[in-house]
Amino acid sequence: MIRPGANPRMKPLLPAITKPADLAPLDLSALTALAAELRQVIIDTVSRNGGHLAPSLGVVELSIALCKVFDFSKDKLIWDVGHQAYAYKLLTGRLKEFKTLRTMGGLSGFPKPCESPYDHFAVGHSSTSISAGLGMAMARDLAGRNNKVVAVIGDGSMTAGLAFEGLNQAGHMDRDLIVILNDNEMSISPNVGALSAFLSRKMSSRFMQQFKKSTEQILRQMMPDFSQDIVEYLRRSESSFRSFVTPGMLFEALHFEYLGPIDGHDLAAMVDVLEQVKELEGPILVHVLTKKGKGYVPAEQNPTYFHGVGCFEPETGEALKHGGCLLPTYTEVFGDTLCRLARRNSSIVAITAAMPEGTGLACFAKQYPDRFVDVGICEQHAVTFAAGLATQGYRPVVAIYSTFLQRSYDQVVHDVCLQNLPVLFCLDRGGLVGEDGPTHHGAFDLAYLRHIPNLVLMAPKDEPELQRMLATALELSGPAAIRYPRGVGPGAPVFDDSRPIPPIPLGQGEFLRDGDDCADCCIIALGSRVYPALEAAQLLAQEGIGCAVLNPRFVKPLPEAMLVEAAARWPRLLIVEEGTRLGGFSSAVLECLADRGVLCRAGSPRIKRLGLPDRFVEHGPQKALRQHLGLDKAGIAAAVRALVQDADEPPAAS
Amino acid sequence: MIRPGANPRMKPLLPAITKPADLAPLDLSALTALAAELRQVIIDTVSRNGGHLAPSLGVVELSIALCKVFDFSKDKLIWDVGHQAYAYKLLTGRLKEFKTLRTMGGLSGFPKPCESPYDHFAVGHSSTSISAGLGMAMARDLAGRNNKVVAVIGDGSMTAGLAFEGLNQAGHMDRDLIVILNDNEMSISPNVGALSAFLSRKMSSRFMQQFKKSTEQILRQMMPDFSQDIVEYLRRSESSFRSFVTPGMLFEALHFEYLGPIDGHDLAAMVDVLEQVKELEGPILVHVLTKKGKGYVPAEQNPTYFHGVGCFEPETGEALKHGGCLLPTYTEVFGDTLCRLARRNSSIVAITAAMPEGTGLACFAKQYPDRFVDVGICEQHAVTFAAGLATQGYRPVVAIYSTFLQRSYDQVVHDVCLQNLPVLFCLDRGGLVGEDGPTHHGAFDLAYLRHIPNLVLMAPKDEPELQRMLATALELSGPAAIRYPRGVGPGAPVFDDSRPIPPIPLGQGEFLRDGDDCADCCIIALGSRVYPALEAAQLLAQEGIGCAVLNPRFVKPLPEAMLVEAAARWPRLLIVEEGTRLGGFSSAVLECLADRGVLCRAGSPRIKRLGLPDRFVEHGPQKALRQHLGLDKAGIAAAVRALVQDADEPPAAS
Repeated sequence: MIRPGANPRMKPLLPAITKPADLAPLDLSALTALAAELRQVIIDTVSRNGGHLAPSLGVVELSIALCKVFDFSKDKLIWDVGHQAYAYKLLTGRLKEFKTLRTMGGLSGFPKPCESPYDHFAVGHSSTSISAGLGMAMARDLAGRNNKVVAVIGDGSMTAGLAFEGLNQAGHMDRDLIVILNDNEMSISPNVGALSAFLSRKMSSRFMQQFKKSTEQILRQMMPDFSQDIVEYLRRSESSFRSFVTPGMLFEALHFEYLGPIDGHDLAAMVDVLEQVKELEGPILVHVLTKKGKGYVPAEQNPTYFHGVGCFEPETGEALKHGGCLLPTYTEVFGDTLCRLARRNSSIVAITAAMPEGTGLACFAKQYPDRFVDVGICEQHAVTFAAGLATQGYRPVVAIYSTFLQRSYDQVVHDVCLQNLPVLFCLDRGGLVGEDGPTHHGAFDLAYLRHIPNLVLMAPKDEPELQRMLATALELSGPAAIRYPRGVGPGAPVFDDSRPIPPIPLGQGEFLRDGDDCADCCIIALGSRVYPALEAAQLLAQEGIGCAVLNPRFVKPLPEAMLVEAAARWPRLLIVEEGTRLGGFSSAVLECLADRGVLCRAGSPRIKRLGLPDRFVEHGPQKALRQHLGLDKAGIAAAVRALVQDADEPPAAS
Repeated sequence: MIRPGANPRMKPLLPAITKPADLAPLDLSALTALAAELRQVIIDTVSRNGGHLAPSLGVVELSIALCKVFDFSKDKLIWDVGHQAYAYKLLTGRLKEFKTLRTMGGLSGFPKPCESPYDHFAVGHSSTSISAGLGMAMARDLAGRNNKVVAVIGDGSMTAGLAFEGLNQAGHMDRDLIVILNDNEMSISPNVGALSAFLSRKMSSRFMQQFKKSTEQILRQMMPDFSQDIVEYLRRSESSFRSFVTPGMLFEALHFEYLGPIDGHDLAAMVDVLEQVKELEGPILVHVLTKKGKGYVPAEQNPTYFHGVGCFEPETGEALKHGGCLLPTYTEVFGDTLCRLARRNSSIVAITAAMPEGTGLACFAKQYPDRFVDVGICEQHAVTFAAGLATQGYRPVVAIYSTFLQRSYDQVVHDVCLQNLPVLFCLDRGGLVGEDGPTHHGAFDLAYLRHIPNLVLMAPKDEPELQRMLATALELSGPAAIRYPRGVGPGAPVFDDSRPIPPIPLGQGEFLRDGDDCADCCIIALGSRVYPALEAAQLLAQEGIGCAVLNPRFVKPLPEAMLVEAAARWPRLLIVEEGTRLGGFSSAVLECLADRGVLCRAGSPRIKRLGLPDRFVEHGPQKALRQHLGLDKAGIAAAVRALVQDADEPPAAS
């Protein structure tokens, strides 16, 4: 039923789609043409702006089918994680703004209710969709409404405990809820875990044996004269058994009605199945098979690389290097150094939660496969598993992004720190991550870790200091955490293999500028803010304002004597961190100075604190965000100037 | 093989058991006698000291069988949650100290590695055992050792996502690991969730239908001339199908070998099965059926009440009321008030994670069954589910103990606060909980919640203030949290049904003592510390020291103007909270005063902070712990005296 006069091969369809209802008149060939248009726009935009390419390409047909069948002006849709929602954004009236994807002030890379009435739940972290959907389903029933609720979740996200908790309760509550399992046999990297093997029907032989034995037994019991021939036939019919024991059994056991598996790129089949599903009641699971990166050869061939990607040449898929930056990232320095330390220390075990590449552990995995574990998207388990290893004398290094370790907070407290076990947490993406925005910024780590007893907490100013902190942590008898930012550091020369990496004494900071010409202010800058503080000090020196710079290195234990010295020697202190101003590093400094009685005496210094404000910070380039929040060289210099002038304006970041 | 001369019916066996190996010579009748002795000691001690009676009575035979079969001087054992380990404590050389169970300085109510070399992992929160055990199994394999690793986990704990994550990876890693599923169809209250129904073979009829249909299809395919009689036979053999679809299938699908179900009180069978299991390799799940409270009639009849119990009369099971305290607990005030508010506000939905009684929601569940949800031991899901409800205009009230909400930290940040959804968190057991000790103290809540944007955070000084805070929170358009202590409050008269409950303006504190005779010090005391502060002020008045008392009510937003006023008017400030001194309420006050420029001026007040120290606080009576940590009336008075004398000793609590 093509619209009169419209030929999808000639005139683009997408510009006319301002809401899902506009899909209603389109027939299969038009929808197919639309899918090609969506892919083109997505590839073009992501090649310029960077973004989550492969996941979004994989669900183009699914997005079209959902919008064709459901009415998302009243039906609810939750995209789990949400990085696959680009096609959905384009189908819900955001074509014009799509070129601003992930740019500052532009469209978010994730669904966001304040961006569109078609985005029903904010997402970013994985595995929340079933729980949120079940809440929406209960609300619908309480209110006596009749809308549908659809949660789309990947097979990777399905391995997280939260998803299982949601499934388990959804089966129990028996409300209308449609869960679409988007099965591409990948999360970010290929999936791990028994569930994954189950979904792909790679049953263990033990399970198959057991299953056949049970079948035989029951048939024999039911039919005592059951012929041996049939038993033999059963024995040999391995393949029949494999198709008999479907992935659906697991979900059916949890009281879900199971449909599938369905080819997620077959638009006709998808529309057909979803039309059926719409008429069903109770909890339903639709198992859809998709290919990550579908329709773009480079992404199909390398879905891990194209999961989240920077700018690239759309014709070839080749990465565009801006300015040819040759510095190693903190991630790389971490991975290389851990490999080096593991050479001499056979007790080191590296653990990641579905992020071997992102955390820099891919090389470790290759060099020390026996001592590397990818637990899948299971941050909670990663930490408790590490605790188990540590009780037996091993030195687990758990590398998880700052924002994702939030999900293990209880395990860090209860399983690691309470027992004072020597687990090392390496928090990549501490501070502002940039384009992934508020769900992904590592804004809270210092505040949620600092108060946990026994934990040593560090932040390096540059690459060699990260190396030294790793060496330091691995000599401790208890737990430690190191947080470092996304991207490259200042490029300080690292300790190569020929030089031993000296550990840092616990709680030892360093004065980096501390001369007679630095009398006006002491900048106490943490981690990634140390170099910008030094640059600000140089800038201010030209203006006649003398600044010392103290690098505390440790958030816990604090370099207390140095802080007290700073408070005694300087009339002004500026504390700078790229983390929340509530309960973070600068609060630790205030606590220290207050408890030492330094703050409340005549002649105590005037103090100003820079950090992340008490609101969720939006997406944008790291550099722009730092500038906006006054955390770069210029912002630090301005804060010192204000302090020197004793201006009474509120802190820049609040 | 009874030891020569020993007759278990005559002479108690338990005193001779100083380690599991001492069970080796005991035969079945001796082991049975030992079980009776264990029960007697447990009932006697718990009747005097209080404790987790029903869980421990349920695993007496399991504990004996484990100690008989395994060698826990090298094999590893993790009791999930750990409140069921009393028999194990008695079998591992702790009979003499057992009378000190849960008393200050005495035995912990949970396994604790620093208490005994037989305790291999510290526990308290649920569902950690499989992950920890898998870590220990990997460590064993890396080190080339051959010990066994056993995790004992209840069916309630099995519903938590962390347990599923552990199972999923254990099946994948295929290491030797024995998981014992202690299935008593209860967690603390009866279990919920589809998994629970699956374990108890209460399959959904839909699942059974689907399963029968599949069986028919496959049999027809394999045997085209399969007679209709057999199909009919299959159709009618519902019960055969039910036994065919065993609980084991789920675990076998996750690559576990499944044994069971076994009667967990049949000692001979248990020893027999565990002997077999010991010889098997790979991941094994042993399904054991037990009865909570087994062997003590009152506990068998009321396992929820006897899950965790105070002192009782052992003959009858009747609770002993010490001093006949008639005050309602905060838990009761919360439950009653929420019922009252729900009468007028039909958008209120109450959510608990397996704690309807413990959180005071049992009455709500009865009065508003449609608006009450017990999600089981799934704190993460509870919060994201609440977020889903809130997006649809409902007002979810999530009641979870302070220590258990730690497990939902990421969901509070990412699913609730990021979207600024009006979810109310009611944190019972904020502060020191007493005898349950370090795994259960609500020490960190203020610090882990305070830095989350959009969240309003309150702590009431007494019962009517809790009521007012509930009313306040339910009028907000965003998220809020209220934390209150375990047990009774000061007994202030509550707002009964005849009086409306007035909300409190956001960020409004109150001066409770503020006269001309209060010039020496202002005590800023939070929540449960307000009344002790008032009492301390009265005491000090008699000594000629004048103290004002400020009740801030809000940790966020702070009553900033009042704090600034306090800093301006008083020469000394004492800040008191029953929460960590790192990043908690007192740090918030320091931040506020520093940012307002109040701290660092001539004439700024001297400040002292009282709170929980930077270490895990041991178990003991709440009163004794508060005294020990200087947080009671006497401690507060002493801190003021020291401040007035300007003594430079370190703060009492550090």
